[in-house]
Amino acid sequence: MAVQTVKEPQVTQGTMWAIEKSAPEPGLKRVTAPIPKVGPRDVRIRVTALAICGTDLHIFEWDRWAASRIRPPLIPGHEFTGVVESVGPEVTLVKTGDRVTGETHLYCGLCYSCRRGLAHLCRNVQILGVDRQGAFADYVVIPEQNVWKLDPRISDVIAAVHDPLGNAVHTALAGPVAGLRFAVFGCGPIGCFAVGVLKASGAAWVAAIDKNPVRLELAERMGADLPLNVERDAVVSAILDATGGDGVDGMLEMSGSAGAFQDGFEVLANGGRVSLLGIPSKPLEIDVAKEIIFRGANVQGINGRWIFDTWYRMQALLLSGKLDIAPVITHVLGWDDFEKAVELQRSGKAGKIVLRRDRA
Amino acid sequence: MAVQTVKEPQVTQGTMWAIEKSAPEPGLKRVTAPIPKVGPRDVRIRVTALAICGTDLHIFEWDRWAASRIRPPLIPGHEFTGVVESVGPEVTLVKTGDRVTGETHLYCGLCYSCRRGLAHLCRNVQILGVDRQGAFADYVVIPEQNVWKLDPRISDVIAAVHDPLGNAVHTALAGPVAGLRFAVFGCGPIGCFAVGVLKASGAAWVAAIDKNPVRLELAERMGADLPLNVERDAVVSAILDATGGDGVDGMLEMSGSAGAFQDGFEVLANGGRVSLLGIPSKPLEIDVAKEIIFRGANVQGINGRWIFDTWYRMQALLLSGKLDIAPVITHVLGWDDFEKAVELQRSGKAGKIVLRRDRA
Amino acid sequence: MAVQTVKEPQVTQGTMWAIEKSAPEPGLKRVTAPIPKVGPRDVRIRVTALAICGTDLHIFEWDRWAASRIRPPLIPGHEFTGVVESVGPEVTLVKTGDRVTGETHLYCGLCYSCRRGLAHLCRNVQILGVDRQGAFADYVVIPEQNVWKLDPRISDVIAAVHDPLGNAVHTALAGPVAGLRFAVFGCGPIGCFAVGVLKASGAAWVAAIDKNPVRLELAERMGADLPLNVERDAVVSAILDATGGDGVDGMLEMSGSAGAFQDGFEVLANGGRVSLLGIPSKPLEIDVAKEIIFRGANVQGINGRWIFDTWYRMQALLLSGKLDIAPVITHVLGWDDFEKAVELQRSGKAGKIVLRRDRA
Amino acid sequence: MAVQTVKEPQVTQGTMWAIEKSAPEPGLKRVTAPIPKVGPRDVRIRVTALAICGTDLHIFEWDRWAASRIRPPLIPGHEFTGVVESVGPEVTLVKTGDRVTGETHLYCGLCYSCRRGLAHLCRNVQILGVDRQGAFADYVVIPEQNVWKLDPRISDVIAAVHDPLGNAVHTALAGPVAGLRFAVFGCGPIGCFAVGVLKASGAAWVAAIDKNPVRLELAERMGADLPLNVERDAVVSAILDATGGDGVDGMLEMSGSAGAFQDGFEVLANGGRVSLLGIPSKPLEIDVAKEIIFRGANVQGINGRWIFDTWYRMQALLLSGKLDIAPVITHVLGWDDFEKAVELQRSGKAGKIVLRRDRA
Repeated sequence: MAVQTVKEPQVTQGTMWAIEKSAPEPGLKRVTAPIPKVGPRDVRIRVTALAICGTDLHIFEWDRWAASRIRPPLIPGHEFTGVVESVGPEVTLVKTGDRVTGETHLYCGLCYSCRRGLAHLCRNVQILGVDRQGAFADYVVIPEQNVWKLDPRISDVIAAVHDPLGNAVHTALAGPVAGLRFAVFGCGPIGCFAVGVLKASGAAWVAAIDKNPVRLELAERMGADLPLNVERDAVVSAILDATGGDGVDGMLEMSGSAGAFQDGFEVLANGGRVSLLGIPSKPLEIDVAKEIIFRGANVQGINGRWIFDTWYRMQALLLSGKLDIAPVITHVLGWDDFEKAVELQRSGKAGKIVLRRDRA
Repeated sequence: MAVQTVKEPQVTQGTMWAIEKSAPEPGLKRVTAPIPKVGPRDVRIRVTALAICGTDLHIFEWDRWAASRIRPPLIPGHEFTGVVESVGPEVTLVKTGDRVTGETHLYCGLCYSCRRGLAHLCRNVQILGVDRQGAFADYVVIPEQNVWKLDPRISDVIAAVHDPLGNAVHTALAGPVAGLRFAVFGCGPIGCFAVGVLKASGAAWVAAIDKNPVRLELAERMGADLPLNVERDAVVSAILDATGGDGVDGMLEMSGSAGAFQDGFEVLANGGRVSLLGIPSKPLEIDVAKEIIFRGANVQGINGRWIFDTWYRMQALLLSGKLDIAPVITHVLGWDDFEKAVELQRSGKAGKIVLRRDRA
Repeated sequence: MAVQTVKEPQVTQGTMWAIEKSAPEPGLKRVTAPIPKVGPRDVRIRVTALAICGTDLHIFEWDRWAASRIRPPLIPGHEFTGVVESVGPEVTLVKTGDRVTGETHLYCGLCYSCRRGLAHLCRNVQILGVDRQGAFADYVVIPEQNVWKLDPRISDVIAAVHDPLGNAVHTALAGPVAGLRFAVFGCGPIGCFAVGVLKASGAAWVAAIDKNPVRLELAERMGADLPLNVERDAVVSAILDATGGDGVDGMLEMSGSAGAFQDGFEVLANGGRVSLLGIPSKPLEIDVAKEIIFRGANVQGINGRWIFDTWYRMQALLLSGKLDIAPVITHVLGWDDFEKAVELQRSGKAGKIVLRRDRA
Repeated sequence: MAVQTVKEPQVTQGTMWAIEKSAPEPGLKRVTAPIPKVGPRDVRIRVTALAICGTDLHIFEWDRWAASRIRPPLIPGHEFTGVVESVGPEVTLVKTGDRVTGETHLYCGLCYSCRRGLAHLCRNVQILGVDRQGAFADYVVIPEQNVWKLDPRISDVIAAVHDPLGNAVHTALAGPVAGLRFAVFGCGPIGCFAVGVLKASGAAWVAAIDKNPVRLELAERMGADLPLNVERDAVVSAILDATGGDGVDGMLEMSGSAGAFQDGFEVLANGGRVSLLGIPSKPLEIDVAKEIIFRGANVQGINGRWIFDTWYRMQALLLSGKLDIAPVITHVLGWDDFEKAVELQRSGKAGKIVLRRDRA
């Protein structure tokens, strides 16, 4: 099970290099694919940097979720930076040569969700690189309404992780933060980003919980006040002790693990906020009476990012220097290192990995 | 297992009649008890009407919850109307002769919850008739800060159910209502009240779900647009059909049943609100990814009532005539009918039952 | 100064009848105009009903605002119902023959407001019939993203006033309503609509204030509990008396008059909401310290409607039967009665006036 | 007009030193006053540090506001730190020896505001040192419900300014902050505190506006990104330029000056927040249509602080190290330096001035 590094096919006119899930089985393959066409309101982007998401690993490994959702052949990838190569005749937001990235929830704009300002919860949503041809290629096409024009002060590497960073910003800022105390369960890249966003936003104290020491160290570098290893520390009592018995005002769930749900409610102050982003792989048993009702908890399902409210606030946090996500991006590799990147990501020894074309 | 109707003991000076849980076993007993003392900021109330809550039935039946929480001897009862009989020297809100009822969450005022305006989630809360001597007696004493002075236009019978009606108002108004569509799971008295509150508050459409035809009829009389019997109707498809596939904007859970949780999420529009009041008797299995996260659901644990924001709004809804809860109060009995009331309530053939002293 | 009823020019192929502001001077003229073209994402609508707004009267009268904003020649009109006559090639929301109306704030979708979900506050907004050719014509063209498809149960007459009704819904629902008390200053059509929306949404009590007895009577028919004539009644003391000295929880300003601003703050409870929709014709003197700061008031500038959250809730209130706006539509006239409609509207003796093509 | 430094009267048993407004005229006097009595729920505090507020200067100068509100003899002062000297028999929150400060809005707990969680907007509010004997004395008495127990890590000097810092926290956190841009008009101590709170809470960019270079420098030390001097800089265009024409997402008005109101609205993004704390000395002319309505602005009157939600968040911001207010406290003087402090404060060359007993 590997990214197949067979001899690369030649790229002819109208074709491009791409990484593809070619068949319903583990692995990914380098292929020559047609350059995607540009509709009247579309934007074609030459990809200059890309990053690998947990979703991409699911697709690579062809797990149950992937098998049920993905229809090969598919070019995965939804975390990217690029330069506008061509635009449809009705596009006005950007022009050829603009540096951009994009929102990966392709929304219809016409459903009950979209028409009430909840485009990130569009009923007909298509995810780039999941439901449509993605960004692990020379070119990717997205609708103008999904394009985000980059400030020149944002680097290609940082821009390539705007999608997961946006998840973190959306989750962290889904309620008041300043002067409040938090626990973040799960210190993968999004969890670590979230620690950074919380601290940049005035969180008075943040506990970060994981079982992976590498990730806990990243969380600490992002500002976590109390890193806790679930395999070593008494998470609940440590947090209650540190908060004078009050518990935390907010809990961010970024792991999807059953244990996090259990501990997370236990450390929540009455009336506290629970923001759920991590995807549990199966149904969980929850003591609703004790954990939610009697606590007066407010439990939020978080999905995607506000389009583009979250983006503006993310950009502003980055440009102001209040949020520095560099520690989480542990590896910046070359364009040909896709296989290496996948292996690194699967090893659990990396934070976020970005590939840059100009390092090829 | 019954309310013991032994020959009543004589009430001497300084004593009063009361209904008591005398020992850790099923049943309730009429007793002579000392008239409770009045502290400097307390109010002693002569009870003129009382109502029976599901909690009282748990205490009567001495189920697992009751056995774990109640320390006999205890006078239960927390739904009541009365007249102020005496006040402590520091009381300024009411005076002897005032008609009142009260908030049954006795809060400390000094904990992290109370000092941030969340007194209903007080960490040291005591519930009247559960943790302290309650209202099934000639007199009940509560702190001034819990007293609610009654408008003369509110009858004793209506006032006696302000506690559960307050639950319904709190749950229904925990988010926007006007011009939105709802499903209420569980049509006990609080569920039926909630249907009425929703409709009075501009809910465009309300489905009401239960398995008890008597209760469903009450819900319909309170304004439910689509009563559904879980034992007969395809709840999920009926609601999706009726909402053009959108689902409901809000789901109120008033039953505590596992099936309601399952169906309730299925019929929820993306971004919808779930307000949980009904107490499940055990942990529930929830498909968090599908039901909460991908839906972008907002799940609220609801407890008690805002003190006294909910009360003001409840009073205003009643006085305006917009909310008429008379259909839910199916029985108004006499003061000596306590045993009968308990049996009726347990039969599932009653809505809310109120006992009035002047009908004794 | 009148709508010119000169002999009508002949409508040839590619042309249509329209009402036009042809020159920078008072009056409106019937003209033959080219049928507007349909862009790729546009929808052309054959108008079947139209209504006259205060804005249209300003244009007719050519007051200071009109002279500064309108560039003749212009077809005014933004309140209408119609049937889709043709659609651009990219339109998917509607098809020929669909009954529709539309949101009159034409938004760019790309500015800082639009991209954060505030399209009604678009920085590049164009108002139909003000900044672009409007609906007082056989045909009107609007972008697909502005089209609202009508439920068959909504009549042409009701649909023709969705724009101002949407203003009222937006203003009334800009904060909690159920179980609260309100004062609505200004009982023109939008003020009267707002009274109805408040009452349908559970407002416990609504005072309505105007100087025109005809309008006050309409407000009363819409459910106002206390109509007050500023020329006859002591508005402030009447409202404070009726609210037990508390004042109202919310004040809706629909008149733009200086006196309303003065009285409106005086009757506001501490912490109350002030929702401003009426446009004062000049700067107002406000005692900010006393009226806003010490009261802890929340003053909202209200503009347009949420696109389309307000529309969905408006539709649901209408379809549920909770909101009946029929009393406010005092006149339904024929297609040729435009001049009569303008005169009626200017007389102050009408509520809302609608013209129907099939009554021509 | 000065604090009279007459020979100090002798303090006998049951008496104490105090600073008093003895007569309706300019100036303050050192006096011997009776030690205030302790009611059953009161706490008597030996003052160890105190700070001087603008309100105290108004009282000193006996301006129009002071003449209309203050009834001599009065001990002013409401910014203080102290140690509990004795408590009433019902007090449970603190005991003798505890270090404390207090909320200076003495609220009734029983009015329409208080009972809905808006105690800071109490209809019967009394301000310490304005409506009741204040803290410029050896002892001050406040109700237990107003006492705030100090964390040992908070110094006496910092605790003495919790009241104005709480104003700043309340104003700054009255809406979302993280990743947003702000303008703060008025850089007195509260304005400077607010700059610090905004920056600690993730504000991406803050402009600070004043005419006093000393104050602007303090604002800059608190983190202001763009200090602007109204007498020298083109405030509106400077802010619009710096925000790419968008304007700021929030405007905090801390000056009460008419010019600030004018400029403040001009630089506000559509849909932005305006939080008003500064007290204009007279009514202001506001172009409501242009500045509030068409902008869709949300204008909040801010008063006091949430009791005690604001206090908890303020404490957490201080303890976390995210908020450092030291730069604003430009002078820490001795107990006998009251006159000097008043003069310094009036000179406009000081930020906040604190007097410490142990420096006497």
